[in-house]
Amino acid sequence: MSESEIKKFKLEGKEGVNLLNSFEFVKVLNENNLSKLMIILALKKNQSENNNAVIIFEKPHFAQDDINSLLALNSQFEMDIQNDIYNKFKIFPLYPYNNIQVQLIYPATEQHIQKYSVQEMFFVSETIEDYNNLTLKFIEQTQLNLNWVYNILEHKKESERIIFEDPDPVNGFILLPDMKWDGQVDNLYALVIVHQKDILSLRSLTGQHLPLLENLRNKCYTALEEKFGIKREKVRAYVHYQPSFYHFHVHFSHIKYQSPAMPDRNIPLSQVINNLALFPDYYQKSTLEMVIRKNEKLYDLYKHKFE
Amino acid sequence: MSESEIKKFKLEGKEGVNLLNSFEFVKVLNENNLSKLMIILALKKNQSENNNAVIIFEKPHFAQDDINSLLALNSQFEMDIQNDIYNKFKIFPLYPYNNIQVQLIYPATEQHIQKYSVQEMFFVSETIEDYNNLTLKFIEQTQLNLNWVYNILEHKKESERIIFEDPDPVNGFILLPDMKWDGQVDNLYALVIVHQKDILSLRSLTGQHLPLLENLRNKCYTALEEKFGIKREKVRAYVHYQPSFYHFHVHFSHIKYQSPAMPDRNIPLSQVINNLALFPDYYQKSTLEMVIRKNEKLYDLYKHKFE
Repeated sequence: MSESEIKKFKLEGKEGVNLLNSFEFVKVLNENNLSKLMIILALKKNQSENNNAVIIFEKPHFAQDDINSLLALNSQFEMDIQNDIYNKFKIFPLYPYNNIQVQLIYPATEQHIQKYSVQEMFFVSETIEDYNNLTLKFIEQTQLNLNWVYNILEHKKESERIIFEDPDPVNGFILLPDMKWDGQVDNLYALVIVHQKDILSLRSLTGQHLPLLENLRNKCYTALEEKFGIKREKVRAYVHYQPSFYHFHVHFSHIKYQSPAMPDRNIPLSQVINNLALFPDYYQKSTLEMVIRKNEKLYDLYKHKFE
Repeated sequence: MSESEIKKFKLEGKEGVNLLNSFEFVKVLNENNLSKLMIILALKKNQSENNNAVIIFEKPHFAQDDINSLLALNSQFEMDIQNDIYNKFKIFPLYPYNNIQVQLIYPATEQHIQKYSVQEMFFVSETIEDYNNLTLKFIEQTQLNLNWVYNILEHKKESERIIFEDPDPVNGFILLPDMKWDGQVDNLYALVIVHQKDILSLRSLTGQHLPLLENLRNKCYTALEEKFGIKREKVRAYVHYQPSFYHFHVHFSHIKYQSPAMPDRNIPLSQVINNLALFPDYYQKSTLEMVIRKNEKLYDLYKHKFE
C-alpha cells in the first residue's frame, strides 16, 4: 500500500464509512462456535496486489449495565419455545447493544493468513538441543516484523493506552491493554512489553532476569489494583511458550477471563520466578512441552519427531 | 403463579411485548466471557412471592451468510485503534444480525438459582511451609473417603472399564476412562491411578518416583494408541494441583478436548518429569501457584493471605 493509499484508507475509518465495504469475502479461515468468533480471508476490491485481508469478527461479552438496559428496553422480540417454566426467545436490541468487534489486518501477509487459519495441533517436547538447533533457526528466519512493539516502546503508537510504564532500560516495561480486551474489569486482558530488546522468550531467561520479572510483577499488580480495583489474587500472570512474537512479554488477565488462546501454552509467571530463583539456568537445561499447529513454520522443523 | 397469571404471562410473549420488561435485575449469578454468556437473578415486578427468575443471556454464533451481509451492509461504525496494518473497530448491524438469545426460567426455585450460580476463585501461592503447615493439615482433616479408588485398584469395582493395567506394586497403575468421557475419541478423557498408596499429590513426588512416572507415561501412550488409535502427540498428560483427591493420579485427554475443569490447575506430566530429572527435590522446595474456590475448605486456611 502506498503512503497516499494508507492515508485514504485511514481517513475512511475516521470519517465513519464502514471500512468493511471495500472488502469481499473469500473464505472462512477459522471459527469457534463456543466463543462466537469467525475469522475470514477477504480481498480488497479494485486492488490487484497486496490485497489480502484477515478479518476477525467477534461478538463482545455482556457488561452488567448492558443487562440492566436489556431488561428495560423495548427491543424487538421473537418467541422460540415456551414449556412450563422454561422460555426461550430472541431480542434484537439497537445501538450500542448490537455491537460486533472487528479486527482488520490489511494488507495481510501469508504468515498472518496462516496464523489465523484453523490447523491440527500436536504436543512436542523441545529439549535444549532442539531449541538451539531448530527453534532458534526458525526465530532467525521467520521473525515477524516487530515495528508495532517498538512503536509502543518508543511512544510512537498507542501511548494514550498505556496503563503503566517503568522507563528503566533494564528492569522497565510498558503495561497496556491487549487488543483483545473488551474493557470490562472481569475480562481484564493486558500485555506487558519489556524495554530490553534481547530477551526472545522464556528460553532466554536466567537468574539475572529475576529483578526484571519481580519488578514487573509487583508494579503491574499495584497498577491493576490502583487503576481497576483488581486485587492480585484475582490476576493471572503468565507467559506463552512458544510465544506469538519473540520480544519478551507477559500476559495479565482476570482469573474469570478465559482466553481464546490455547491454555496449554500458558506458563504462570510465578512458576517462572520460582524456577529461576531455585535454579538460575532452569530454562537453559529444561525440556519444555509445547503445542505446535500444523500451519506454523515450527511444525516443519519438528514433524520428524512424530512422523 | 396462578393459572390466569401464567396465561397472561404467556400471552405477553405471544403478543410480542418484551417479556423482560416485567423483571428487574438483582445480581449476576454467573458469566462466561469466552462464550459471551451472562446469567442473572431477577425479580418479577409487582409480585410478592414465587417471584424469582433466572435469565440466561447469550450472544449467538455467526453464520457464514451473516458475514457476507456484514461486509455489504452500511452498518454504523466506530474506530477504536489503528496501528500499522492492524485496525480494530466496532460495527452496529440491525435486524436480524443484532439478535441475542435469552432463556427465562420463571418462577425459578432455589435449586435453579444454585445450579446457575458460580463460586469466586482466587490465585494463591503455596510455599513449602504453607504446604506443611496448612495444606497437609487440611488433607489429614478432610480427606474424602478413598474407598472408590481402592475398589478400582483391587478390582472390586469398574474392572470391566479398565483400559490397561500394570500390576507392579511400585511402578504399576490402572488406566481407565474418566467418568466425564463421552466416548468420542476426540474427547478422550482418561484417568491413571497408581498402585502406590502413599503418594498424596505432586508435592510427595521426588526423583525416586521417576521410574513410576516414566513407566506410566510410556505404557499409557502405547495403550491409548493401540486401543483408540490416538498418537502420543495428540495426548495431553497432566496432573492437577490441588487435586480433587489425595491419591496420586494423572489425567490423559485428547489435545482437542477442553475440559470444563479449570485449566489453571493443569500441570503437564512432561514438566513434572523434567523437574524431577533435573532437581529430585523440586516439589519439596518450590512455591506452587494454585487456584482456590470460595466454597472449598482450603479457602478458609488460605484466605488470610489476601484479606
